Amino acid sequence: MTTAHWYDDPIPAPDATTFAAAQERQTQLTKPPGSLGRLEELGIALAAMQRSQQPNVDKVWISVFAGDHGIVAEGVSAFPQVVTAEMVRNFARGGAAINVLAQECNTRLEVINVGTASPLEMLPHVLDARVGHGTANFMYEPAMTDTQLDKALHAGRAAADRAAIADAQLFIGGEMGIGNTTSATAIACSLLNRPAKDLTGPGTGLDAAGISHKIHVIDQALARYRSQNPLEVLQQLGGFEIAALAGAYLRCGQLGLPILVDGFITTAAVLVAVCLHPELARWLFYTHCSAEPGHRQLLDTLEAQPLLNLGMRLGEGSGAAVTVPILRAAAALHARMATFAEAGVSQE
Amino acid sequence: MTTAHWYDDPIPAPDATTFAAAQERQTQLTKPPGSLGRLEELGIALAAMQRSQQPNVDKVWISVFAGDHGIVAEGVSAFPQVVTAEMVRNFARGGAAINVLAQECNTRLEVINVGTASPLEMLPHVLDARVGHGTANFMYEPAMTDTQLDKALHAGRAAADRAAIADAQLFIGGEMGIGNTTSATAIACSLLNRPAKDLTGPGTGLDAAGISHKIHVIDQALARYRSQNPLEVLQQLGGFEIAALAGAYLRCGQLGLPILVDGFITTAAVLVAVCLHPELARWLFYTHCSAEPGHRQLLDTLEAQPLLNLGMRLGEGSGAAVTVPILRAAAALHARMATFAEAGVSQE
Repeated sequence: MTTAHWYDDPIPAPDATTFAAAQERQTQLTKPPGSLGRLEELGIALAAMQRSQQPNVDKVWISVFAGDHGIVAEGVSAFPQVVTAEMVRNFARGGAAINVLAQECNTRLEVINVGTASPLEMLPHVLDARVGHGTANFMYEPAMTDTQLDKALHAGRAAADRAAIADAQLFIGGEMGIGNTTSATAIACSLLNRPAKDLTGPGTGLDAAGISHKIHVIDQALARYRSQNPLEVLQQLGGFEIAALAGAYLRCGQLGLPILVDGFITTAAVLVAVCLHPELARWLFYTHCSAEPGHRQLLDTLEAQPLLNLGMRLGEGSGAAVTVPILRAAAALHARMATFAEAGVSQE
Repeated sequence: MTTAHWYDDPIPAPDATTFAAAQERQTQLTKPPGSLGRLEELGIALAAMQRSQQPNVDKVWISVFAGDHGIVAEGVSAFPQVVTAEMVRNFARGGAAINVLAQECNTRLEVINVGTASPLEMLPHVLDARVGHGTANFMYEPAMTDTQLDKALHAGRAAADRAAIADAQLFIGGEMGIGNTTSATAIACSLLNRPAKDLTGPGTGLDAAGISHKIHVIDQALARYRSQNPLEVLQQLGGFEIAALAGAYLRCGQLGLPILVDGFITTAAVLVAVCLHPELARWLFYTHCSAEPGHRQLLDTLEAQPLLNLGMRLGEGSGAAVTVPILRAAAALHARMATFAEAGVSQE
């Protein structure tokens, strides 16, 4: 018997009528047609998503999910596992990059602990939604149980619901988890049916020998398990924070809440979600191409054209936060520029 | 006898001691080294320019220079000449792209009429600093006289001085002038000793036949006059707004006021200024690579690495205005992120 799951609910499409009217409006604004480049495309997309020729993205919501990874026992990260919990404390105190960026662009920021290995005291702005003390080591066994997968997806769904209740106009997911490029790479290799060497990179800072070892670890894990079933892959090779991101994205799509995708890890979560629900693609904006080499290939697979290329590879949602003002500029131009007729400016 | 000119005054260098300390600080912030990509380089550069580990670019000044071009008599633009003056009115009423962007990123914006062909009534936020009723047609004669060149350079200098008096931390120059891609292309071809076909593009929207004709016009002008003397080239082939931009940039360099360079036209003005004073290069940030094809080649010549690639080709300072939040984010991250020691986070 098949059970219905919340994530099977349909994802609507942005409004086609508003889209067409937005395209027409762009040709009437006082500028040579096309001269605002991708800002025109963004303004049109936001108009269609918000069903309004006055789109705006003033209210932005950032949820950062933190979790640990059993695979770090194989020595795949440049940083020790305790850094995941230490960084959650840093988020709580406002010292991390995402704190500074969220403040700089005036967005809401919450941190959700979906499963650090170390225990954590109560912390301001940090929700405890632990699914476990880190995932199991996926070289030898599934990263998480069925129940853990459901809980992690649900933690993401709940974040999207909170964003929607707060009237957010844009959702950003971020992540923190030592070892999570290894999990994200394994997920991508499985879903895209590629060997580890095609997608593996340095993560937070491995050297060449470290990358070789990481490739070996991922290939061994893929020898144990490999499939193209998105949720099974997530359970077998994923992380709690990656599952939460996938859940958040799916719920945003159901709610018609536009998403700004961050870097490599979040794009792997998008890949899972889009494999499950291709319609989700219409609610996604891609911010940047990370310096992590596998990101370009994920973006190509998803036919994504990221907006920035600043060589970032931090995660936390930082690349997306930096991109927020670009979307705001696009919305403002679409909404507020004068038309040729309004301004009395001659056309070609 | 050689007369001393204000633009011969020296341009200082950003502070080397602050630069070195800023590089060290970036390695101590709670992130993997290098993971903020170009934002790290921007934070370090701003720190050295402002001699402070707490750089900030809250106060941004935008001066848009408008002028007309005699060369439009040769049919080199998709829009009629009257659009220059019409757009100045649009700036005054707040309907143009640069108005919306300046408001969106909370910057000062002034418009300086250095020489529209049509007369213009008094307009709010528009300074009258007319050097002439448009330049002469440089296919047959020098675009401007010695006196006009001096006045136009001085109009730019005055704008930089106003920005500095207002405590601006960043200067953006913008331009409006039907026909000014033709002038900018001619300047670039002369200074780089290249034929017109290498650098000519569609401007506001010429078709292939229009581009061919524009190449022919520029080559004829270059047959009349061609040299590598920057100020002579500016006088012979320039526009009033391009000369004003060059003057503004030179003065900003003298004042140690960082500059955010916009698109193709402003980069041609930068080329003139850097040929005159190579030290100016240390005060320049490049925002984007315009869709105008010659821009990439100018950027390569200047060894510039623009931050964005959004396919914009509008001018007005619009590409630079869109980039302001990137610089602000870089400054904020440099100033406000916690160090590993402050946050109690373990290092590699």
